[in-house]
Amino acid sequence: MMTKKTVQDLARWLAGEPEGELDKLLSGVQSLETAGETDVSFLESERNAAQAMASRAGCLLASPGVALPGRTVIRVRNPRYAIARAIELFHPLPSRQSAIHSTAVISKNVKIGPDVAIGPLSFIGEEVRIGARTSIGAGCVIGDRVVLGEDCVLHPRVSLYPGVRIGSRVILHSGCVIGSDGFGYVFEEGRYHKFPQVGTVEIADDVEIGANTTIDRAALGVTRIGRGTKIDNLVQVGHNVQIGENCVIAALVGISGSVVIEDNVVIAGQVGIGDHARVEKAAVLGGQCGILPHKVIRAGQTVWGTPARPLQEHLKQQALLARLSRIEKRVKPSSQVKDEKHQRSG
Amino acid sequence: MMTKKTVQDLARWLAGEPEGELDKLLSGVQSLETAGETDVSFLESERNAAQAMASRAGCLLASPGVALPGRTVIRVRNPRYAIARAIELFHPLPSRQSAIHSTAVISKNVKIGPDVAIGPLSFIGEEVRIGARTSIGAGCVIGDRVVLGEDCVLHPRVSLYPGVRIGSRVILHSGCVIGSDGFGYVFEEGRYHKFPQVGTVEIADDVEIGANTTIDRAALGVTRIGRGTKIDNLVQVGHNVQIGENCVIAALVGISGSVVIEDNVVIAGQVGIGDHARVEKAAVLGGQCGILPHKVIRAGQTVWGTPARPLQEHLKQQALLARLSRIEKRVKPSSQVKDEKHQRSG
Amino acid sequence: MMTKKTVQDLARWLAGEPEGELDKLLSGVQSLETAGETDVSFLESERNAAQAMASRAGCLLASPGVALPGRTVIRVRNPRYAIARAIELFHPLPSRQSAIHSTAVISKNVKIGPDVAIGPLSFIGEEVRIGARTSIGAGCVIGDRVVLGEDCVLHPRVSLYPGVRIGSRVILHSGCVIGSDGFGYVFEEGRYHKFPQVGTVEIADDVEIGANTTIDRAALGVTRIGRGTKIDNLVQVGHNVQIGENCVIAALVGISGSVVIEDNVVIAGQVGIGDHARVEKAAVLGGQCGILPHKVIRAGQTVWGTPARPLQEHLKQQALLARLSRIEKRVKPSSQVKDEKHQRSG
Repeated sequence: MMTKKTVQDLARWLAGEPEGELDKLLSGVQSLETAGETDVSFLESERNAAQAMASRAGCLLASPGVALPGRTVIRVRNPRYAIARAIELFHPLPSRQSAIHSTAVISKNVKIGPDVAIGPLSFIGEEVRIGARTSIGAGCVIGDRVVLGEDCVLHPRVSLYPGVRIGSRVILHSGCVIGSDGFGYVFEEGRYHKFPQVGTVEIADDVEIGANTTIDRAALGVTRIGRGTKIDNLVQVGHNVQIGENCVIAALVGISGSVVIEDNVVIAGQVGIGDHARVEKAAVLGGQCGILPHKVIRAGQTVWGTPARPLQEHLKQQALLARLSRIEKRVKPSSQVKDEKHQRSG
Repeated sequence: MMTKKTVQDLARWLAGEPEGELDKLLSGVQSLETAGETDVSFLESERNAAQAMASRAGCLLASPGVALPGRTVIRVRNPRYAIARAIELFHPLPSRQSAIHSTAVISKNVKIGPDVAIGPLSFIGEEVRIGARTSIGAGCVIGDRVVLGEDCVLHPRVSLYPGVRIGSRVILHSGCVIGSDGFGYVFEEGRYHKFPQVGTVEIADDVEIGANTTIDRAALGVTRIGRGTKIDNLVQVGHNVQIGENCVIAALVGISGSVVIEDNVVIAGQVGIGDHARVEKAAVLGGQCGILPHKVIRAGQTVWGTPARPLQEHLKQQALLARLSRIEKRVKPSSQVKDEKHQRSG
Repeated sequence: MMTKKTVQDLARWLAGEPEGELDKLLSGVQSLETAGETDVSFLESERNAAQAMASRAGCLLASPGVALPGRTVIRVRNPRYAIARAIELFHPLPSRQSAIHSTAVISKNVKIGPDVAIGPLSFIGEEVRIGARTSIGAGCVIGDRVVLGEDCVLHPRVSLYPGVRIGSRVILHSGCVIGSDGFGYVFEEGRYHKFPQVGTVEIADDVEIGANTTIDRAALGVTRIGRGTKIDNLVQVGHNVQIGENCVIAALVGISGSVVIEDNVVIAGQVGIGDHARVEKAAVLGGQCGILPHKVIRAGQTVWGTPARPLQEHLKQQALLARLSRIEKRVKPSSQVKDEKHQRSG
């Protein structure tokens, strides 16, 4: 499965500047620790230079400035991006068979584009449209009237509820559920009545959604995930949530109903966001932090803690708490001193 | 798919009082922002009156007291409940086909009531009983001896382990798992031995369980979810947990083994409850709060934070923390002043 | 289904010392509260002696020292372990049929050991190897080149991505996903590019993994779960994570990429661990605590809170916070007193 390439070939593929043995043969990508003489590896920054010099890697991807005397190096502007492209070269994904498996169940009025793959034991509902080269894994269930764009990859056992719309080049991991009912009830006559969830979900191009993540349909209207946004495993996105473009949302995050998240927001693991909160552009939400309902997090702000507040405030608070024992000690002797004074003056 | 109704028709359906153009035709339900002239919308309270006046909605559902001059209005006691019922009128759920798909696998001694639907590629174990009009989606796996009541909806890809018992009108969302083994081990001879999980799960009538939620079977005895309780997506319910009636449990909540939750409890997102804790009637657990093992939360109490304490205490603490910097400043100069006095008097 | 055994039989099975009516017939295992005259129950410690004396259980498993006058008792060193073994005796798991269901789809070059069971509507990819007596439930999807050891149990609807390697006696619960892509991207030219995830996952012998838990494959190299480790439901294990032997990880825990967890670590529910953190041997992480990225938790340490710190520190801090209001009060009058002094002396 391994392809062999020379340092020269790889440099050309990466549009980088090679140094050292240009015709050395390379066959794979490894970390600095595990790389051998036919592997290429990389340094994220100058800090890793010593580790890189100690590595047995046959070729190193590094930024222009980093000194790596005697080593075969390809100079690139962004070594992390370059190594991702090198992996694509050396470890190409197995080619998918564009075929519809005989055990897949396809309902009527389904439109299937060219070179589509539909895996074994998957079910496609009525009036579904599947774009060119999209691949649907084994055991998926695609509800009626779903629209899937081109070049999507649905890993095995994905559920799309009826009417959900998915863009192109979207990757959906195993077990994720898109379009389940939002969590809405009305309390009346001593019990909860279901608030019908008749909206839908729209996922834009280039989105990736992790394993067992759930995205609820809107009550009315649309739950929306913007272009290029990446969502990790086991994330909950509530009904009517609006997520912008190029956001990154880590595992186990919970986003309540009607939350708005603007573009380029970064959300760390296990963050909770209350309903109707708004997170403005490029804000960063620290791990496990909690945003209260209806709260607004300002553009570019980094917040931490529950309830979340700006990082500087949070750190100041943490530092104060660390001094709390000293504060208490200062208070105690002072009042004891005073008591003693009173006694003396008494 | 849209049904047209007059304002008069809708008022009759809702048992409300119409005002304005009674024969205006309506065709759907929308939010105040997105509604057009043939849509009905609603005001949750007087606070939304200005927004409602600015809306293009052809008809508004509102409480009796709210002034909406010149608008076509239907007066109802609970507008949120009324709009839920209006959605049922205008956006009826697609009728399900009561049929057993040819690719479903039905084991022996299964009892299937009238008008049951069993979706494609689903599996029904031995001695399962399925009540009238219950619908099982594609790709579900129903273990041996499971009992399902009447009028249940199982969305695609639900797992019911053997022996689980489900009431009537229960809704189970895609990917949920009911009856998996509880997390119980005994440490002996340097390693963990599995504590056999031979109990079961009972889910009462009118319960709804969200996508990818997991409910473990009891070690011995029964894990129980009471009538009318609603559980959101990605919730974990441990073995031997007892949940009462009409509770509401939001996403990503973790409920440890043997916890007791009484009726009408509300649990916000990402709350964690330690084993053997008891949450009494109508308590409210704030988002991300943590209940320690064996702790009791008193009836009607609202708690916040980790470890959780009554909301008033929590807020007092938060306010104190906000003044901490001032407290420290007061302490510092005072001691400096004192030091100076000492010097002067020295 | 119930087997009847005498007290004598049970004592022999448990290698315990019987006292009382040795030929009494027993037919099941129950908790102290629910046990009847033909049930065996157990006391975890002397604290439960009064409750045990009040129980109707026909036989009690107890440690040697505990006084239970007039009762039929079997003395064992570890009653919890003994009751687990008693459950195995009285409630044996239904025997699995070692058969390949006619609706299972088996690809080419699959190697299947003796007495393997493959459930209905499951899919086995190319070049998969399945060890002797392993049982694969309904609706599972096993990717190409997966290796499964002997005596494994895969409950229904498990996903194994291609190339994943699983040891022997591993239990995988419904909905779990092993080998999904790690969450890795490179930001370049204004958008996120996928960092290819070409590593794999290795799960050692005697591991159990809960329902809807997700374990990501390594970017390069291997995500590893050590022998005997038990993972609960809805846990996220990120790419390149290394987990040692005999760890216990409760529900809804999030473990970020490249974290190292050594042997015998205990992690309570909803804990979050930042990337590249290291948790040393036998550490205990308290419920909902948060470990910052790159942090090291020392061997044997118990930590709490976010950011997590040693339990004693955490408790000291909590006690200080509880005194905060008193500290503030002490500060206020003192400064007022001083002001008054100044006025008097002025």
